[in-house]
Amino acid sequence: MDKENIIKNLSIKTETKIVLLVLDGLGDIPYNGKTALEKAITPNFDNLAKKSVLGLTNAIFSGITPGSGPSHLALFGYDPLKYEIGRGLLEALGINLELTSFDLACRANFATKDKNNIITDRRAGRISTEKNEKLCVFLQEKIKKIEDVEVIIKPGKEHRFVIVFRGKGLEQNLSDADPQKEGHMQQFAEALSKESKKSALIINQFISLVDEILKNEYPANTALVRGYAKFPSIPSMPELFKLTPAAIATYPMYNGLARLVGMQILNTGETIESEFKTLAENFSNFDFFYIHIKKTDSYGEDGNFEKKVAIIEEVDKYIPQVLALKPDVLVVTSDHSTPALLKGHSWHPNPFLLFSPYVQKDEKFFTESECAKGSLGRFPSKETMTLMLANALKLKKFGA
Amino acid sequence: MDKENIIKNLSIKTETKIVLLVLDGLGDIPYNGKTALEKAITPNFDNLAKKSVLGLTNAIFSGITPGSGPSHLALFGYDPLKYEIGRGLLEALGINLELTSFDLACRANFATKDKNNIITDRRAGRISTEKNEKLCVFLQEKIKKIEDVEVIIKPGKEHRFVIVFRGKGLEQNLSDADPQKEGHMQQFAEALSKESKKSALIINQFISLVDEILKNEYPANTALVRGYAKFPSIPSMPELFKLTPAAIATYPMYNGLARLVGMQILNTGETIESEFKTLAENFSNFDFFYIHIKKTDSYGEDGNFEKKVAIIEEVDKYIPQVLALKPDVLVVTSDHSTPALLKGHSWHPNPFLLFSPYVQKDEKFFTESECAKGSLGRFPSKETMTLMLANALKLKKFGA
Repeated sequence: MDKENIIKNLSIKTETKIVLLVLDGLGDIPYNGKTALEKAITPNFDNLAKKSVLGLTNAIFSGITPGSGPSHLALFGYDPLKYEIGRGLLEALGINLELTSFDLACRANFATKDKNNIITDRRAGRISTEKNEKLCVFLQEKIKKIEDVEVIIKPGKEHRFVIVFRGKGLEQNLSDADPQKEGHMQQFAEALSKESKKSALIINQFISLVDEILKNEYPANTALVRGYAKFPSIPSMPELFKLTPAAIATYPMYNGLARLVGMQILNTGETIESEFKTLAENFSNFDFFYIHIKKTDSYGEDGNFEKKVAIIEEVDKYIPQVLALKPDVLVVTSDHSTPALLKGHSWHPNPFLLFSPYVQKDEKFFTESECAKGSLGRFPSKETMTLMLANALKLKKFGA
Repeated sequence: MDKENIIKNLSIKTETKIVLLVLDGLGDIPYNGKTALEKAITPNFDNLAKKSVLGLTNAIFSGITPGSGPSHLALFGYDPLKYEIGRGLLEALGINLELTSFDLACRANFATKDKNNIITDRRAGRISTEKNEKLCVFLQEKIKKIEDVEVIIKPGKEHRFVIVFRGKGLEQNLSDADPQKEGHMQQFAEALSKESKKSALIINQFISLVDEILKNEYPANTALVRGYAKFPSIPSMPELFKLTPAAIATYPMYNGLARLVGMQILNTGETIESEFKTLAENFSNFDFFYIHIKKTDSYGEDGNFEKKVAIIEEVDKYIPQVLALKPDVLVVTSDHSTPALLKGHSWHPNPFLLFSPYVQKDEKFFTESECAKGSLGRFPSKETMTLMLANALKLKKFGA
């Protein structure tokens, strides 16, 4: 039996409550001698860490730098090598589209072609986001359905937009409708398997319609379509773990990822303060809460070490409020590391802290190097879920 | 997707350079209270360790004692359970034969049979290596080809020799042409699958020819053939990891293993000094260097603890020369442990040290017990490659 089925068979519904606090990109390497966690003044994390068990996690495996999709799936208890989240899907989630299992999501660019159908600019001169929004509304008015397939068109930034084809029998195994390089002929999608023939037909009709509708909209007179992604068939958290889970996040993509695994999305404000307020207000209605703090990652990506430190210090202030709710299990960790030194995601492990009445207290501080000495050792992120469920007494015994 | 394909898809070519220094059999258990690494006076390793991240590796899994083949494959980034290197192949590599993908390598013994074809001595009275060499030259003169298959015959030690059959359509699924016990009839190879029929025919013709040619050479009047091994189809390091790798080793088998995965073999002398000189001389021409130090293992196998310590101290002296080359990543580890106490390979983990600009410094010494507290924890040797590639910034992000 695979691990997923083992957990499914062992999980039970209880009254206990779990809080998973994810500081995106928290993990770090020293920047002028200290990591962000080492530099930050965090009396509440320190106090919590003394009563918690610590460790380090790898989202994928040693040395692999994860994207947000696989690293979050791992935190939610899924094998990130088993479930793939295509680029088109992530983009659709990122602009707050609610997707269904009938959806084929695609990334698209507005582009320029000449009268011989040679693509002369893959980004249509990087048209403004406002122009993009107008073009998408214009296209959506004219294209609502192709055959029995509903078409949803939503703008992204600059020349980028997302198309969701919603209907039966759409598969993702297709070639890109994009020559990848300028100076080459416009390409149409080609089915790479029998199952994808319908998708190819619909996508190519879509492109022909766009060409017709936009013929006077130079430089945005065609569309390149790629990054096809079916809605993945992931068993939901309620199904696998018997949880009634809720997500609190300020960025659409993380809410999208949470929705993908069956979490309910809670309305919240833009600030960290509002996220913790949302937690308190909804605490009686769910038994699992995923709270996502985005800015540790954003400032890491910017190389802004001091601001990353400041965000950690801000989150630290709300820990007493979380503890006042008396969660049975509280985990604080990251999805991946985003060292300011590297200005991007990295392969370094995530600091991990688990607080519950049933832990061997490590009596350490919450930093990468102290977590390295924690009694949980180094383990895969996807085991976060089993550890949380176990500590919430939500897992039966395996075997007699 | 399997891990190998993930790494293949993520790896990119860069200018950064990696040095993998393997002290064969370095890992140890205490001998009169200390391991060889604990006993050795190693100021340079100690200094390096303070700036490095540490851990312990298992070549196969806990409790498994690896041979040199699988333990090196793991260090080179390959799953040692996926790729098998047959005994015949290792023997052929060990006597410096350059092999091709058309080769079927076999181990053979000179043996004695009586006039009723009963094997009376499986080792022909352990004839001398000199006699063996003469017999091999004699046989090679008379047997150059069987049908369309080239035959290469090379002596080993005492009664042992190696045969390489080079031609199309040779497979390894055959029974041994060896009764295994004395007092039994001479055996011929039997094909255990349709694909191996040609190999059986060729090998059995070879044995009949040997019997004819050696009929007056009692006690070496026949040959037993076994350990058939096809050249394995392993994707090369350049293909998988986009590296231009070079090997520096004094023993043929390690060069053979390196050649198997696509490394270029650099000429070097017999001494440790010459190996490091070769590294310096070739440093600008490659982006990955595997340096193999054999004698830590040899003295471990001899149970000679003091000499094992002395080799470690000798290698330590060259660390400043390596650092002076400014490699982006330097790893020091072993393929397996060879405790002097056990006089052989063992299942104990390998001490592991990785130095790069992007590590969380563990600030420890380079010993087994300090590595056990390192922030890399305990991990499979095959992840050595992903860690090295990551720290050399040679891996893209996994997933969006």
